[in-house]
Amino acid sequence: MDATRTETDSMGPVEVAADRYWGAQTERSLAHFPIGTDRFRWGRAMIRALGILKKAAAQANAELGELPPELARLIGVAADEVISGELDAHFPLVVFQTGSGTQSNMNANEVIANRAIELAGGTIGSKRPIHPNDHVNRGQSSNDTFPTAMHIAIVGELHDRLLPAVRRLRDTLADKAKASEEIVKTGRTHLQDATPVTLGQEIGAWVAQIDFGLAAVTASLPALYELAIGGTAVGTGLNAHPRFGDCAAAQIAQLTGHPFRSAPDRFFALAAHDALVQTSAALRTLAGGLMKMANDVRWLASGPRCGIGELSIPENEPGSSIMPGKVNPTQCEALTMVCVQVFGNDAAVAFAGTQGNFQLNVYKPVMAHNVLESIALLADACDAFEAHCARGLKPNLPRIRENLEKNLMLVTALNRHIGYDRAAEIAKKAHHEGLSLREAALASGYVRAEEFDLWVDPEAMTRPGG
Amino acid sequence: MDATRTETDSMGPVEVAADRYWGAQTERSLAHFPIGTDRFRWGRAMIRALGILKKAAAQANAELGELPPELARLIGVAADEVISGELDAHFPLVVFQTGSGTQSNMNANEVIANRAIELAGGTIGSKRPIHPNDHVNRGQSSNDTFPTAMHIAIVGELHDRLLPAVRRLRDTLADKAKASEEIVKTGRTHLQDATPVTLGQEIGAWVAQIDFGLAAVTASLPALYELAIGGTAVGTGLNAHPRFGDCAAAQIAQLTGHPFRSAPDRFFALAAHDALVQTSAALRTLAGGLMKMANDVRWLASGPRCGIGELSIPENEPGSSIMPGKVNPTQCEALTMVCVQVFGNDAAVAFAGTQGNFQLNVYKPVMAHNVLESIALLADACDAFEAHCARGLKPNLPRIRENLEKNLMLVTALNRHIGYDRAAEIAKKAHHEGLSLREAALASGYVRAEEFDLWVDPEAMTRPGG
Amino acid sequence: MDATRTETDSMGPVEVAADRYWGAQTERSLAHFPIGTDRFRWGRAMIRALGILKKAAAQANAELGELPPELARLIGVAADEVISGELDAHFPLVVFQTGSGTQSNMNANEVIANRAIELAGGTIGSKRPIHPNDHVNRGQSSNDTFPTAMHIAIVGELHDRLLPAVRRLRDTLADKAKASEEIVKTGRTHLQDATPVTLGQEIGAWVAQIDFGLAAVTASLPALYELAIGGTAVGTGLNAHPRFGDCAAAQIAQLTGHPFRSAPDRFFALAAHDALVQTSAALRTLAGGLMKMANDVRWLASGPRCGIGELSIPENEPGSSIMPGKVNPTQCEALTMVCVQVFGNDAAVAFAGTQGNFQLNVYKPVMAHNVLESIALLADACDAFEAHCARGLKPNLPRIRENLEKNLMLVTALNRHIGYDRAAEIAKKAHHEGLSLREAALASGYVRAEEFDLWVDPEAMTRPGG
Amino acid sequence: MDATRTETDSMGPVEVAADRYWGAQTERSLAHFPIGTDRFRWGRAMIRALGILKKAAAQANAELGELPPELARLIGVAADEVISGELDAHFPLVVFQTGSGTQSNMNANEVIANRAIELAGGTIGSKRPIHPNDHVNRGQSSNDTFPTAMHIAIVGELHDRLLPAVRRLRDTLADKAKASEEIVKTGRTHLQDATPVTLGQEIGAWVAQIDFGLAAVTASLPALYELAIGGTAVGTGLNAHPRFGDCAAAQIAQLTGHPFRSAPDRFFALAAHDALVQTSAALRTLAGGLMKMANDVRWLASGPRCGIGELSIPENEPGSSIMPGKVNPTQCEALTMVCVQVFGNDAAVAFAGTQGNFQLNVYKPVMAHNVLESIALLADACDAFEAHCARGLKPNLPRIRENLEKNLMLVTALNRHIGYDRAAEIAKKAHHEGLSLREAALASGYVRAEEFDLWVDPEAMTRPGG
Repeated sequence: MDATRTETDSMGPVEVAADRYWGAQTERSLAHFPIGTDRFRWGRAMIRALGILKKAAAQANAELGELPPELARLIGVAADEVISGELDAHFPLVVFQTGSGTQSNMNANEVIANRAIELAGGTIGSKRPIHPNDHVNRGQSSNDTFPTAMHIAIVGELHDRLLPAVRRLRDTLADKAKASEEIVKTGRTHLQDATPVTLGQEIGAWVAQIDFGLAAVTASLPALYELAIGGTAVGTGLNAHPRFGDCAAAQIAQLTGHPFRSAPDRFFALAAHDALVQTSAALRTLAGGLMKMANDVRWLASGPRCGIGELSIPENEPGSSIMPGKVNPTQCEALTMVCVQVFGNDAAVAFAGTQGNFQLNVYKPVMAHNVLESIALLADACDAFEAHCARGLKPNLPRIRENLEKNLMLVTALNRHIGYDRAAEIAKKAHHEGLSLREAALASGYVRAEEFDLWVDPEAMTRPGG
Repeated sequence: MDATRTETDSMGPVEVAADRYWGAQTERSLAHFPIGTDRFRWGRAMIRALGILKKAAAQANAELGELPPELARLIGVAADEVISGELDAHFPLVVFQTGSGTQSNMNANEVIANRAIELAGGTIGSKRPIHPNDHVNRGQSSNDTFPTAMHIAIVGELHDRLLPAVRRLRDTLADKAKASEEIVKTGRTHLQDATPVTLGQEIGAWVAQIDFGLAAVTASLPALYELAIGGTAVGTGLNAHPRFGDCAAAQIAQLTGHPFRSAPDRFFALAAHDALVQTSAALRTLAGGLMKMANDVRWLASGPRCGIGELSIPENEPGSSIMPGKVNPTQCEALTMVCVQVFGNDAAVAFAGTQGNFQLNVYKPVMAHNVLESIALLADACDAFEAHCARGLKPNLPRIRENLEKNLMLVTALNRHIGYDRAAEIAKKAHHEGLSLREAALASGYVRAEEFDLWVDPEAMTRPGG
Repeated sequence: MDATRTETDSMGPVEVAADRYWGAQTERSLAHFPIGTDRFRWGRAMIRALGILKKAAAQANAELGELPPELARLIGVAADEVISGELDAHFPLVVFQTGSGTQSNMNANEVIANRAIELAGGTIGSKRPIHPNDHVNRGQSSNDTFPTAMHIAIVGELHDRLLPAVRRLRDTLADKAKASEEIVKTGRTHLQDATPVTLGQEIGAWVAQIDFGLAAVTASLPALYELAIGGTAVGTGLNAHPRFGDCAAAQIAQLTGHPFRSAPDRFFALAAHDALVQTSAALRTLAGGLMKMANDVRWLASGPRCGIGELSIPENEPGSSIMPGKVNPTQCEALTMVCVQVFGNDAAVAFAGTQGNFQLNVYKPVMAHNVLESIALLADACDAFEAHCARGLKPNLPRIRENLEKNLMLVTALNRHIGYDRAAEIAKKAHHEGLSLREAALASGYVRAEEFDLWVDPEAMTRPGG
Repeated sequence: MDATRTETDSMGPVEVAADRYWGAQTERSLAHFPIGTDRFRWGRAMIRALGILKKAAAQANAELGELPPELARLIGVAADEVISGELDAHFPLVVFQTGSGTQSNMNANEVIANRAIELAGGTIGSKRPIHPNDHVNRGQSSNDTFPTAMHIAIVGELHDRLLPAVRRLRDTLADKAKASEEIVKTGRTHLQDATPVTLGQEIGAWVAQIDFGLAAVTASLPALYELAIGGTAVGTGLNAHPRFGDCAAAQIAQLTGHPFRSAPDRFFALAAHDALVQTSAALRTLAGGLMKMANDVRWLASGPRCGIGELSIPENEPGSSIMPGKVNPTQCEALTMVCVQVFGNDAAVAFAGTQGNFQLNVYKPVMAHNVLESIALLADACDAFEAHCARGLKPNLPRIRENLEKNLMLVTALNRHIGYDRAAEIAKKAHHEGLSLREAALASGYVRAEEFDLWVDPEAMTRPGG
């Protein structure tokens, strides 16, 4: 068997490795874009999405009489192999290629055409009986297929990876909140001791913030369900059957189980990717919330002896190559680094989103890549954090109690009884003279002992009207 | 009359200009934060919002029996003057102060207290009969009032300034799209000539993108309707009547006409401001869409003779101090500069949003400021662009027709009839030999003249199934 | 006297307020760009820079025989009034105008021409004997003058405001470091107790980081000394005397005392503003260092009783409107908010910096504005922080000692004597059994009491070879 | 042979694949941080840098009498294998781990120790005769070794990949500029026709901007030459020989050929990574310049018939899956996508750079990763762009001539002769009446034919004094 075979495209012949299904255009892209080849080849999500798209397109074309049923069937079989991952090795292209993703669209067209030709007993590279452009790409342009695949991939990753992972973490934290709803502790504002809260309230605020992030991400889905397919080259749908976009979207919906539909304005669907910008922003919001939570966890766990020390976290690994016995909040660190990466990715997405011209935004691949990467990282990091940190969080009750007892801001409970100005006098006296709040209060003459004990009740201070 | 009077707070006496209503804490902030005093004093929106909040709080406290009706009435009258703008000169503080906005909350408390004291015939600075903390700030903390005022201010500006301005621009563009729906022109992808679109479709994509941005901004409103009020210092509501948050929110809803309500998790409402992060992100998305539109406008209007030249824009000002007769797309430039500023503001907001600790995010003022600034700039720029550019956009029909006629990508219509590969041959021949597409097509032998004329119909190519 | 007079430009007549020196083009800009008028009018730095530039240009033109000496003298007198600030009220334009700054350049040309006409006894608005374009703008275009003024303004603000303010803060901290070089305390890594450092070393690292930021800002100056002047419309210098750029730059150097010179590539000097991008990045680096320092200060000062509490900071204002006696690290908060703003401003600058096309970047005003704002805010915030926080920083010695004594990471000193693994055993034993390190070490049998006391010497551990 | 062997660390035993050299801590990290495992394993640059560091440390320790020569030799041999890449499969960890990079430092310690044990004929996993902490990590902490390796890796990649690639591109463009220095063409400002430039001047401005970026990157090197090594856990150098940092840095300098030296303030070198922030900013500046250039290229090449069309670019691949014969500026698209990614990466780096606390910044891995990724992408993209675009750039002379001839802004040459106002009249007349400039000028009566022909000389307008 020869090491290569000849493939052709409108520019002429190209030699391709004989054991690869791709064709001339993929090979040209490989040659012209050796950029970040170690980290930036498309991953499972995009390849699978291209497979789904091509299968759906073939089915829609068959349904509309644009493609002979047998050709559609063969394309479908080959596309199924793309979907399943069997052909991943035949998708060698990277993110940094043409900005429309044309070369990855052609990669899918070529691989599916050649594999379908093979299934049909034809000669790979002959384009007969299945032509990559005229059949696999029938009624399509990269300009509508690539953004369609972007949406399919992102929606899939959101549903299958991100949302479940974040919800698991959220639920674990909610359980922790529930379990600690009676643990009264020092609140902190401006990093300074403040009036008390329960640990349940403190953790509950993290849960509420994660819920907010989840809601933001979820709210970004409907725009992702709108697909560019049917717009072809510039949005007009030239060369596609007038019902092709709707039919293909319906097929995609069926194949994925998600309510995809044809975009109401296909011109906009090619020219800009604000749906991705909004999704990326929602991921950023979620990341911001996770970062705040992870920071709170590590500060509350700071110490073990010279910090706040109110929480203990699992001891997963030796913390230091030089300081023996040190345990560090490494899950917090990995998660916050992921959050920072998500911020960076989002900056790239939003910037790219502004740079469209006329009928096309040619930053599609870099936008898709960054959104997919943010999703994957957040999902992985939430899973790791849940398993190796959140689940093992424990209150350090002696420290919590000690900190609560010496907290001068319990004085706030006196405002209603003696007014802000006198309460302030008491707190300052305690602070500057090193007294307990009770000692200072009684010394002030503004409060009697039994009043103090009645009024200054930390547990009551955590309840409405307390 | 003395030039100053003595005001006091828990730290002691301070001299204040006699003709100012503010008190000791405002004065201390003035002294300690001379940062950006020329550009960063709070504007109308925040001052008004503080007035609304204080009036609502007084009414809620009166309703709940926490404040004598007469005191509440006096506070309300003074707050009305804050709302109306009469007392703006008494709000001298800047954004870069304490991160909880405590000093601006106290500024409102002090001004309202002193003005109410004056109305009551008392001695300004005496704190009698109205005390800034015990009465005006009754049941409140800066930690819940300031974010409440932030939401009130932002919601107001979104409804009153941004949304109407963007909608005006959107409608003007929609009218232009409608009026040009039969003008067939060259489409462009990758900056290269592509298959035809109508000018109506091209402008319509801008409208669709602006609609997307409007929808994103609108979708951010419900989270802004949720108010921190009632949480007081750390979210527990200490020192507030248990129903105070709900009552105050209802009063605010009534005063503003917007459906404000008490936040379901007040701990989260103090500790993070993800509602602002999401609003800022939506403004960024909107800005991205406006930037794309403005760039398209100026590129389409490029020339007048050596560019694309398919649109003409109003000649508002001489364009150059050295090149006589030059007219530049200055409204596009101002608008895109605003968009870039909105991106920068958003970066600040999102960064700040991650930096909360425990029960409080202490980047409140900088977050509020940037969101308000983005709103104001986008509103102003949309209004200017609408009046001085969008309204005057006109197609340059001769140029549009000339460009359409020489566009080689009309060849795409041949794909369905002779296949992609042969169509490509024709286009390349025309390009390299300087022929018209028709000439090259006929010379190729793949197409007859009558077929060419039937199949290559630019107008039909802009319609579904065309 | 009439309320208005008629001014004209190449587009025709415009009515201008009779008491203003500006002309038709300024008036048109006022009408067309009502964007951010409350916060975005040009400030002192840019107006002064325009005055310097126009004076220098007139002198250079006179020197080269391009302008009659008397006209140059009159322009110089008027420009001096612009430089001094007397005519600030005649500069009403905002940042968001044409992206070349043409309208502000014309504002300067018009004001100087009219004032010079007045000085010459002529009729304001007559353009005789001094024409805004032909004389004041002689040999110039907005495209080279505006970026020249940007550089003059930024260099001035860096030298006059930023560098001195940062150095003052740096020196105060360096004094604190010196004063505390013998105070041994707990080091912290990963927020966990680590081996000891001196407070002097800890503060010294802040100083080193600020020095790094200062060096970065300083290193950005040489590129700012290179001026676009002499390039006129597109970089070729059309209509300017061949030596005009060099002469004008020399005049500017003399007027300012800074080593300005003509840019080696004037095409680049108009088409891109990477010098500003680099300056903005340096300001961002400085801001990052200040943020780290301010965060360390507030965490070290956290408490007063339930935090780290090793530093005490000045009590400048009551910290809370509800919690009496609370003192917050408000200077840290203002400074870190400024840092976040600088990050946002930098994002806008860098974005704008990418968006030039061909011979011109038309984001000049927004770039200049953000760099100037970052400079002003950092300068103001450093001054405030220095005066109201850094100067008053004090070690809390009892807390420092207490934290040091209980720090388990002193165990690290044993590595060299008994190996990492055995040292880790001891630390874990102490941690889990609540023992002191000495107790655990002796119980382990690996170390004798006299060895422990000899080897575990916190003070020695802070010295090289310790 | 068993599938696994037992490795131990201070937390106990762990099973490790028998064919891997890594030990217990690497294995724990693998288990706890399954985050981004497909894209975020450390690459060649960091692994190599860790090898260099460990070899240098062993040599320094031997030199200082801290390590027996034979152990140092064995460590050196194993480290050489790390440096060469032979052991890359034994470095399985990802970026998102502990924020100090401890686990990657331990990965290096463990692999080198086990391989050295093997070389010594010992039992892998026995830690004898070579212990990962006590010998390979001798005098070191992750806190100083990891940032040292970061600097080594980044400096290497800058020198070996980025700078040569950018210089190649720069030189190719400089050659193009030289070759086209006599081609006079239309200049463009505000996207509008402006006075003429030569193509050489236009391309020369790109070269000047790339030179600026190169200078910025180069200027960031000295700070990278300063190494944290010698600081150990917190900067004090505890457990290291007092001269260890200097000796190790000298060894690193010798091994790499770059002038590395020990950082003057090691506390700062652990607690912040502003050197990386500045390098990242310089990469951003470079990316901004490349983006401007690539945008200019594609706009100048826009068309082929309905755009500017003054440049032609190589036809590398079919441009469209639907539009036959279309050729797109794909190298420009890949490069600008890379630039956008660099902006995103930089945002992550700068954000992470602010988040240090006390003696340590725990965002080291994410900072190093993003800087290294930006370097690799820019290098790859510059190489691709140089080879497949820049080298093949060609002027389209007929179009350049045509555009020049119809350019109305040649009128600017008349300013000096008839004044700005009359020149403006002529240009407007030509524009509105569709006349050539010459026709309008003569019709105006301000200029005679022979004067026009003398004064309006496009070629002369591109020269100083022209």
